[in-house]
Amino acid sequence: MHNLTFPFLPKRLYCVIGWPLDQSLSPLLHNTGFQTLGLDAIYLQIPVSAQDLPRFLDSVRLLPISGCSVTIPHKTAIIPFLDSVSDRAQQIGAVNTLYWRDEKLVGENTDCTGFLAPLANVALNTMTVLLLGAGGAARACLRGLQERQAKNIFIATPSNTRQIALAEEFAAEPILWQERYDVHADLIVNATPLGMHGSHEHETPYDFAQSSCQASLAYDIVYNPRETRFLREAARHGLSCLSGQTMFFEQGNAQFHLWTGQKLPEEAQNILHQALARKA
Amino acid sequence: MHNLTFPFLPKRLYCVIGWPLDQSLSPLLHNTGFQTLGLDAIYLQIPVSAQDLPRFLDSVRLLPISGCSVTIPHKTAIIPFLDSVSDRAQQIGAVNTLYWRDEKLVGENTDCTGFLAPLANVALNTMTVLLLGAGGAARACLRGLQERQAKNIFIATPSNTRQIALAEEFAAEPILWQERYDVHADLIVNATPLGMHGSHEHETPYDFAQSSCQASLAYDIVYNPRETRFLREAARHGLSCLSGQTMFFEQGNAQFHLWTGQKLPEEAQNILHQALARKA
Repeated sequence: MHNLTFPFLPKRLYCVIGWPLDQSLSPLLHNTGFQTLGLDAIYLQIPVSAQDLPRFLDSVRLLPISGCSVTIPHKTAIIPFLDSVSDRAQQIGAVNTLYWRDEKLVGENTDCTGFLAPLANVALNTMTVLLLGAGGAARACLRGLQERQAKNIFIATPSNTRQIALAEEFAAEPILWQERYDVHADLIVNATPLGMHGSHEHETPYDFAQSSCQASLAYDIVYNPRETRFLREAARHGLSCLSGQTMFFEQGNAQFHLWTGQKLPEEAQNILHQALARKA
Repeated sequence: MHNLTFPFLPKRLYCVIGWPLDQSLSPLLHNTGFQTLGLDAIYLQIPVSAQDLPRFLDSVRLLPISGCSVTIPHKTAIIPFLDSVSDRAQQIGAVNTLYWRDEKLVGENTDCTGFLAPLANVALNTMTVLLLGAGGAARACLRGLQERQAKNIFIATPSNTRQIALAEEFAAEPILWQERYDVHADLIVNATPLGMHGSHEHETPYDFAQSSCQASLAYDIVYNPRETRFLREAARHGLSCLSGQTMFFEQGNAQFHLWTGQKLPEEAQNILHQALARKA
């Protein structure tokens, strides 16, 4: 089942930083990976406030911390402190992963990798995509859709505020929120927080009953709960569904690979599913 | 046997700092303690150079690191960076332990506690002590002997250089190295590196054949090997022997108690003995 020896004497330290951090599932994912594969590493949760970010980066270089997951509010603010940032992270404008390459501290964005993973066998170049949302998550999706040369991309967001600038940046089409049912989309992606565990849990960004489109695929990047209202209603209207849990697992899997050269083992996926089932 | 669950998700970070650190047994001791007792803590080895010490202290306060063992070359240099230092550590002039008390970072010296532990039932107030060595370890012994009101303390050191100043500071008697056999000691303590694993392993600070003293007790603070030449020859001359392994375990035990309020479990002692037996 796993390779934990007693006493467990890790040598390498990884962590997630953010503020707040109470709900992070990343320690579960990565520690399961390290321990199943018998690696001498441990992953901790380290709350870091916005004002402490520069001091934290100094600690990363001193201790040295072997790798780091980066979450809100640091994903953009961290960029100037790094030795190098991937093209992807640069365009998305957000880093969610730090790793070392040739003694340089590098920033990467694996949310994009995670988003694309379940679309590997989908012919995006023949598809019209309706992307709902225009925040940081939407940027990672847009970069991914662009890399895979999606045929058309329409962007709408509930506040009707950022879709025009974002569409221009990623060669997509901005539309008003109220026009979203007019798009004949093949793939509909929810990158808004609507449906997420908490105050938005019973909401959805899309009412399939109002839509005449023939979409075949619905993708919710919300991962908690696993089955959002958006996906539940999409399934009822005959669409295939992709859950944010896969994206979450795959962004972590890409981090783990950057850090260890290995893939997260099946145990990590199982334990993540169990943990999310308990939260639901 | 122990309470390791899978995956193991520690929340609190402890470490040992020093330079170099290859041989430290502290991670073994403390991780065995944490894991046997089911505590959500992990202990890492963090090499920190002399010039990086101020930056490291900043990391301790930021991350936050819950506690720290301090070894060469930082034991004295670290003092100005702390919020408070115990009387013991102040007089010894060395800190080997950092812990938090009321959000203050406190420095303590548990080498002294470790030294005294196996002497708990020895009537030091009736005994003449010959202390061999005048370095940092000797200072911790002197503080301990003073606390326990040893009747007389004589200090000699191979280089004949520091015994006078040290004796003055701790109300002891300085003697020349070549006069050490003239002292009618009840307890002889080796606080020199003679006999330690490595280049001094086959040496001893004291030739019992040259001595006419009726000492009953020999105490070697060297802990690797467990049986030094000094202790082997002392035993052959009928003295009772105290090994540095007990002192090493007990200084760690005192650290663990400052950090957790608990004692190191028996497993920690067993695993330490096994590790030292393998090294020997």
